[in-house]
Amino acid sequence: MKENTNLKVQPLYNIENLKVHGRTTNSLSPLVLFWTGSGIELNAKSSELWIEFEVDYDLYEPWISVLINSVPVSRQMLTAGRYWICIFRGMNENTVKNIRIIRDVQAMNGDPNCSLQIHALKFDGELYPVEEKPYKLEFIGDSITSGEGAIGAKAEEDWISMWFSSIKNYTAITAEALNAEYRIISQSGWGVLSSWDNNPHFNIPEYYEKVCGLLTGEKNVALGAFKENDFNSWQPDIIIVNLGTNDGGAFNSPEWKDSVTGETFKQKLNEDGSYNEEDLKAFETAAENFLIKLRKYNKTAHIVWAYGMLGLSMMPSINRAVDSYIKRTGDKKVSVFQLPNTTNETVGARSHPGELSHKKAAAELADYISQFLTTK
Amino acid sequence: MKENTNLKVQPLYNIENLKVHGRTTNSLSPLVLFWTGSGIELNAKSSELWIEFEVDYDLYEPWISVLINSVPVSRQMLTAGRYWICIFRGMNENTVKNIRIIRDVQAMNGDPNCSLQIHALKFDGELYPVEEKPYKLEFIGDSITSGEGAIGAKAEEDWISMWFSSIKNYTAITAEALNAEYRIISQSGWGVLSSWDNNPHFNIPEYYEKVCGLLTGEKNVALGAFKENDFNSWQPDIIIVNLGTNDGGAFNSPEWKDSVTGETFKQKLNEDGSYNEEDLKAFETAAENFLIKLRKYNKTAHIVWAYGMLGLSMMPSINRAVDSYIKRTGDKKVSVFQLPNTTNETVGARSHPGELSHKKAAAELADYISQFLTTK
Amino acid sequence: MKENTNLKVQPLYNIENLKVHGRTTNSLSPLVLFWTGSGIELNAKSSELWIEFEVDYDLYEPWISVLINSVPVSRQMLTAGRYWICIFRGMNENTVKNIRIIRDVQAMNGDPNCSLQIHALKFDGELYPVEEKPYKLEFIGDSITSGEGAIGAKAEEDWISMWFSSIKNYTAITAEALNAEYRIISQSGWGVLSSWDNNPHFNIPEYYEKVCGLLTGEKNVALGAFKENDFNSWQPDIIIVNLGTNDGGAFNSPEWKDSVTGETFKQKLNEDGSYNEEDLKAFETAAENFLIKLRKYNKTAHIVWAYGMLGLSMMPSINRAVDSYIKRTGDKKVSVFQLPNTTNETVGARSHPGELSHKKAAAELADYISQFLTTK
Amino acid sequence: MKENTNLKVQPLYNIENLKVHGRTTNSLSPLVLFWTGSGIELNAKSSELWIEFEVDYDLYEPWISVLINSVPVSRQMLTAGRYWICIFRGMNENTVKNIRIIRDVQAMNGDPNCSLQIHALKFDGELYPVEEKPYKLEFIGDSITSGEGAIGAKAEEDWISMWFSSIKNYTAITAEALNAEYRIISQSGWGVLSSWDNNPHFNIPEYYEKVCGLLTGEKNVALGAFKENDFNSWQPDIIIVNLGTNDGGAFNSPEWKDSVTGETFKQKLNEDGSYNEEDLKAFETAAENFLIKLRKYNKTAHIVWAYGMLGLSMMPSINRAVDSYIKRTGDKKVSVFQLPNTTNETVGARSHPGELSHKKAAAELADYISQFLTTK
Repeated sequence: MKENTNLKVQPLYNIENLKVHGRTTNSLSPLVLFWTGSGIELNAKSSELWIEFEVDYDLYEPWISVLINSVPVSRQMLTAGRYWICIFRGMNENTVKNIRIIRDVQAMNGDPNCSLQIHALKFDGELYPVEEKPYKLEFIGDSITSGEGAIGAKAEEDWISMWFSSIKNYTAITAEALNAEYRIISQSGWGVLSSWDNNPHFNIPEYYEKVCGLLTGEKNVALGAFKENDFNSWQPDIIIVNLGTNDGGAFNSPEWKDSVTGETFKQKLNEDGSYNEEDLKAFETAAENFLIKLRKYNKTAHIVWAYGMLGLSMMPSINRAVDSYIKRTGDKKVSVFQLPNTTNETVGARSHPGELSHKKAAAELADYISQFLTTK
Repeated sequence: MKENTNLKVQPLYNIENLKVHGRTTNSLSPLVLFWTGSGIELNAKSSELWIEFEVDYDLYEPWISVLINSVPVSRQMLTAGRYWICIFRGMNENTVKNIRIIRDVQAMNGDPNCSLQIHALKFDGELYPVEEKPYKLEFIGDSITSGEGAIGAKAEEDWISMWFSSIKNYTAITAEALNAEYRIISQSGWGVLSSWDNNPHFNIPEYYEKVCGLLTGEKNVALGAFKENDFNSWQPDIIIVNLGTNDGGAFNSPEWKDSVTGETFKQKLNEDGSYNEEDLKAFETAAENFLIKLRKYNKTAHIVWAYGMLGLSMMPSINRAVDSYIKRTGDKKVSVFQLPNTTNETVGARSHPGELSHKKAAAELADYISQFLTTK
Repeated sequence: MKENTNLKVQPLYNIENLKVHGRTTNSLSPLVLFWTGSGIELNAKSSELWIEFEVDYDLYEPWISVLINSVPVSRQMLTAGRYWICIFRGMNENTVKNIRIIRDVQAMNGDPNCSLQIHALKFDGELYPVEEKPYKLEFIGDSITSGEGAIGAKAEEDWISMWFSSIKNYTAITAEALNAEYRIISQSGWGVLSSWDNNPHFNIPEYYEKVCGLLTGEKNVALGAFKENDFNSWQPDIIIVNLGTNDGGAFNSPEWKDSVTGETFKQKLNEDGSYNEEDLKAFETAAENFLIKLRKYNKTAHIVWAYGMLGLSMMPSINRAVDSYIKRTGDKKVSVFQLPNTTNETVGARSHPGELSHKKAAAELADYISQFLTTK
Repeated sequence: MKENTNLKVQPLYNIENLKVHGRTTNSLSPLVLFWTGSGIELNAKSSELWIEFEVDYDLYEPWISVLINSVPVSRQMLTAGRYWICIFRGMNENTVKNIRIIRDVQAMNGDPNCSLQIHALKFDGELYPVEEKPYKLEFIGDSITSGEGAIGAKAEEDWISMWFSSIKNYTAITAEALNAEYRIISQSGWGVLSSWDNNPHFNIPEYYEKVCGLLTGEKNVALGAFKENDFNSWQPDIIIVNLGTNDGGAFNSPEWKDSVTGETFKQKLNEDGSYNEEDLKAFETAAENFLIKLRKYNKTAHIVWAYGMLGLSMMPSINRAVDSYIKRTGDKKVSVFQLPNTTNETVGARSHPGELSHKKAAAELADYISQFLTTK
């Protein structure tokens, strides 16, 4: 192998013209990529580029996707260790390439040791500023928003990192259609009030104000996951909340029992199979409270509750919650939007929305959202 | 990281139930992947699988794609060195997964040190037999068949490995549509008589009978590239020859001069811009002779000359050559098929066919080929 | 011209095996086709078939479409007069053809003299029974459901019969996808509470229980338009209400003034451009009352309020109305479904949904409705 | 009915600003529409328009399609007689509408009494000039070019006018894509040398120079069908010859016997099922002679032999014929283009190309042809 002797290592904190995507701490030594869809973006005038990652996990390894000039060209598993990965080589050193390296797997509540960090770059040219996009979107959701099943064969059933995608994902496709920057806050199985299996602690709202509060473990303390998020530094134009699917599932799942206190939690069905009204009300209250919290931290964003890619059972409750919120607060910058359902033709792995379902949802969502974006 | 202590290393030559794709030597210690689209296939009942690669190059690094249950889930650059790559982990150890690891870049005539080898596997379960597919296809071509530009943004102009794909490629898509195994023999820029720039040594027919005769360098001698190919071990049902595009280009390129002998070579234009008849005739003779050679080594295959994805300028000559071959030999198992042209809507990187063009070509080619496949 | 001397005229009331589509009286001497999508269906084993129409109008002539074996083959304007139209000729007399002749223009409130009647058939063979479809759908709507603009160039602006289609229409496409029979009750510009221009008399609910109560004029009295509809004879499995678009428009239109009483009516905007709450409430009450009326006449149908093909401004009100209805009555067989919005790519004539928009809406609606159809 | 008293009848020969499409005589009293795709075009600023047709036939009635502002809005059978048909009414009298009335059925060799004529218009405004399109295309073909089976259910088997379309037809779609005017010369079942059933008189070339020479009967003498065509008045930029399919079929059909002379004609198969070489040669000679004839009457047109929508069996012969023609004449403005085959997904009625097949063929053909059209 002929070595490229012009390559120079630069720690990330030294890099000008670095664009960081996704909610994280303000540290660059190293940079922690907590959320799916988070990553770095560069405009690189160089012939070659390497990135130094540090990776760990007990169960669920991270994956990354590489986009060059907005086209995905690489997707790979990152095994444990600290090492360099080559992003490109042999390119024209006089041409500026837009490079995005994106975490392709959700934050992993179930693996306290899962982490993905970037220490440094190595390249032989210069970096140019990344142009700011005119709009900012924040997506908040569950497995659908985590892109679970968006890649892989329909037959796949394992719950593993490989079947998650932040690229073949309605979030990324919507953002590209609107020329917007985006962030994702998501966790498979979680809801507004509880998880699909009635665990009341597995709800997104409770952890919203932390950098990545739904993580666990000592290591994540050190990485800054539980710090207060700096909302001032990044205010979205639109927040898309795609939650409710697991809250609906909870009605059809067994009760959850707290192994310490013995307490149980269960969303109940009526005898005729419909949802118990009181339990629905609890969900609606949680949803309304989440809107209040979202507004607290996001003063100007239009909030869209977008729901329906895996059925509509909670839609009336979501409508009531949003209606009640608007009536109570007078805040009219909130609305509900039904996403197209996943069908036999559009389903992906693990009975989740496939790439076609994500594309269809993104097309309708982008069309809907565009009315709230003022030309900039 | 929790280590999987059940993993066992097995050298490739020890592995039963290994399916090797692509033309190569019969060595498995290690296995050399010469051609794009070559690779290994496994039916793995295990929770985890690693592969030990050995990689080298001066200029053009190899890339691989990983398909699990026929769906591409990973694509990555392989940098120089000997190392293990994890293909999957954390899967259900009781389920059989079909795994294909495919070389995603053509054999590189221009880089004598480019090589990709597989030494061993590491896994914790068992391998099951890979079912033989009912048909075998052999594709012979140039950059189109190498999938140059099938991945990457339209703006890309660098000639690098990254923009080659054997997956978003009409060869793979045709084979999948017909449930066939396939091999690719291809080189960017090469033709039947000469390369696009009139180099008469850069023609595919001259090297057809060797394992990978168009490679260069001492190292490839050692790897067995220049050995006679064992045609008996793999006889295709259909051979698709997609050559002629560069022979057409030669008419519009400057002459080529042999730096040693001073000899020059040039396909000439008439004053009105049409192709010189004598030079066309030379192409036709070369094409006819290639058919004779193909038939020598492939006694029963139907041969389809499939052409047209980047224009039709050589089509009349190809028709004449095939016509003349049939008349001379009485061999009627040869035909010509026009592939759909690449348009502004279907073009990819480097002004080459993009994924949409490959899909369209594959759909029409598979429909055409199916008439020659007897139900097995 | 060679005459077919085997043709025999048969008045409609004499015909066995005649299937009548659409809400009408029980008279067959002649049959009146009031609504768009209404018509007759035959299984004809004959070589030739003619139909005797009687047509009149002052302003808006009717059109028909002819479907043979479910494929539209003819669409034509019917000018005033009583005359025979040839549906087919020269066909194999031993083959049974399924024939549908469908009115392609809505009932015309604005033209008291518009009428379309069928007196007789003329054919040379036999008619066979038309198989009953397993499901029945009733669509209730405005211009969208009337198929206004579903045919014609985007540039068209005239309000004329030619631009209406009951075939390139989500109603027909949904019914075909579900293998269902269907009826349409619709009027362009009308709503639940008022028309787009605030006329409180132009609302569908007021006229629902009559055969075709929204018509006007003496002639329509004679034709039976204002008789009570016989709901027992045809009970739908699903009712789709696609109303609200004009109620939304009323907020942005000038007040309507009764020329006799001087009374005015106006749905008002708040200063910030949002809808006045009291006026919204009036709409919601009207919607809720309409549901009560629908349930009175349709004891078992699932009712879907399907809305959104031209924007979502009334969706929160529709949700509240349905919610309130369910709470008040305990009737759970009512739900709301958002239809996909019309975009620049899917718009048709007169700024109304085009064929592509209707197809998209039908695909999503059929998928949604299928959950309420028990296998028959 | 309220009559429009402003309508004025104008005989066609009196009309300025009339655009006639299709090959016909220069008579306008009346105008005869011989060929499918022929018709009249108007830019009408009026509120209403009627056309007076005169129609006759023994077997095969004509049909017309009406296009308003380039969108098909009506398609109807024309039964025998002389009568007025209303094209539109109630439109804005101050807007100019582009109107095309197109014959939708091929010239009928098998029905000497089939005729379609236009006598007069009736309207209440003015006609404006129809802008000339920059290009002219002439299509010469068989049932494929006649649009046989392009409309109707797959199950249809009757050979009747209803299943012909000049609109859902690759000719019209290609012309629209290229913004070209077009003419069609075509007859189902006919070929270059003989018809599908070996009748040597049923070949298109023999009749090419007459206005509509393939018609029969005294009446067509009177209508001018057998007059010399005035080639000077309309010279195409491109001629597309889509013939050969029936010549191929002749090899697999019984011999044809002249009922008068007792002579027989048959294209023969070899014992191995391949085509007899001498008979192929006869086809090739006929094809070559047809090219000579086409060039005689069309001095500057590029001629494309476009073939393949129903299989490729004659392609090698077509290539040889064109090759031989070019070699003999030095005329390089002739080429061969393979059209995409019809598949199970794209087939229409009567086992012929359906609308999807025509669309696909048109897309590829238009892309190919565009290289021969100089910007005007």
